[in-house]
Amino acid sequence: MPEKPLDLAAARLKITRFIKRKVVQSKTDGAVVGISGGIDSAVAAYLSVEALGSRRVLGLIMPDGRVTPQEDIEDSESVAQELCIETKFVDIASIHQSYMKNLEPNKLAEGNLRARIRMSILYYHANLTNRIVVGTGDRSESLVGYFTKFGDGGVDILPIGDLYKSEVRKMGEILGISRSIITKRSSPRLWPGQTAEGELGMTYETIDGFFKMYLDAESGLRRAASSLGVSPDEGKRVVQRYKETQHKRRMPEVCRIRH
Amino acid sequence: MPEKPLDLAAARLKITRFIKRKVVQSKTDGAVVGISGGIDSAVAAYLSVEALGSRRVLGLIMPDGRVTPQEDIEDSESVAQELCIETKFVDIASIHQSYMKNLEPNKLAEGNLRARIRMSILYYHANLTNRIVVGTGDRSESLVGYFTKFGDGGVDILPIGDLYKSEVRKMGEILGISRSIITKRSSPRLWPGQTAEGELGMTYETIDGFFKMYLDAESGLRRAASSLGVSPDEGKRVVQRYKETQHKRRMPEVCRIRH
Repeated sequence: MPEKPLDLAAARLKITRFIKRKVVQSKTDGAVVGISGGIDSAVAAYLSVEALGSRRVLGLIMPDGRVTPQEDIEDSESVAQELCIETKFVDIASIHQSYMKNLEPNKLAEGNLRARIRMSILYYHANLTNRIVVGTGDRSESLVGYFTKFGDGGVDILPIGDLYKSEVRKMGEILGISRSIITKRSSPRLWPGQTAEGELGMTYETIDGFFKMYLDAESGLRRAASSLGVSPDEGKRVVQRYKETQHKRRMPEVCRIRH
Repeated sequence: MPEKPLDLAAARLKITRFIKRKVVQSKTDGAVVGISGGIDSAVAAYLSVEALGSRRVLGLIMPDGRVTPQEDIEDSESVAQELCIETKFVDIASIHQSYMKNLEPNKLAEGNLRARIRMSILYYHANLTNRIVVGTGDRSESLVGYFTKFGDGGVDILPIGDLYKSEVRKMGEILGISRSIITKRSSPRLWPGQTAEGELGMTYETIDGFFKMYLDAESGLRRAASSLGVSPDEGKRVVQRYKETQHKRRMPEVCRIRH
């Protein structure tokens, strides 16, 4: 049995209370959030403002001028304007280049480096303004490990970390986020032309449907696959991705000596 | 009752087996380790080579020319030479400067940024050479949260993460690490003149002794403090540091919606 659809209004309330509570518990003055022009960061920013008010949220827009489409920059700016939040704009291209003077070129490593540069800038502002870093990762990305360890994965809290990508889009709709952001194809934009579903080799519809069965409803791999009309091999591929990326969802393992 | 002293030979064996196992499990070809000239990274590098052999360990020496003492660079180079490992040298000063063109000066934030630049370079090489990043943090630093989140804390495994600072020094002695490194005062060197014990306001002898009683032997705060000859207030300060830095020893908290 597939689970019943998420109660978005209840989720919205839980998330805003969570953000408020974590800021109070950490004795900080608010939140710093990276705004990319994608749906995840837009929803995370909207809910942060709903929780804390505009004045306690700082938005960071950090394109790489050589990689980020102009459309993303415009969408990021319209999110910030809509929310009336203070925004800082840092083009990371020159920072990336200063690393590359010492490193040999490599597409994957350079992509991950972009995510880590953004994390470093977010924390710089968190230190400066005594705020926490609000992560923008969702449950779909987390389960398939589709994020950069200590890059976009390097954050203090994950308010939408339990929502599947498809649910984040629906949340975007009830929040009144613009169509161009809601319908945009997902991409971490770590290199030109990258798309999430292209790289993963499957759609988020499949990934979300599969994990709702396989993890949330604890049905077997074959049953989860067949109910979605995908092959058992495709199901196995998702499970393998899930297992091989466990280390990204856990703390670094300590060699235990004492016990 | 204070615990009996650690069996260093047994710990050495456990750690080398752990490193070997984690490299096999992750299907990678070896380890990348940052060598700073301090005792922790020297011990982590020695044990990595003992576990994997010289050819599967890459050492990264990453001073900031404006902050790192010459002595540390020389000590780092002698560790690498002693171990016969391939070494890369990256002065992070120009990378740090390229960030600072976009950011306002702040001592603490700039210090943490140095640690995050180093993490980013370690992972660049890990990506490039299909290796894991071996962390150099010890148990004392972890318990008082004396590390940069997603900086030196951003690693794949923590082989000496269960050893107190005082035990790491003893391990350094049996490994034959040079006196200048073993006796050097601990410092993350995030800014000139910084020392760990100065900043923490207590010695590692106190910190280690306190946690051995308070956590490992589960004695009360007052008893742990008095057995070390320190005031209950000082004990409370250590416990407060421990509690306030919990977030650094845990994964980012997800707002749970489903259950």
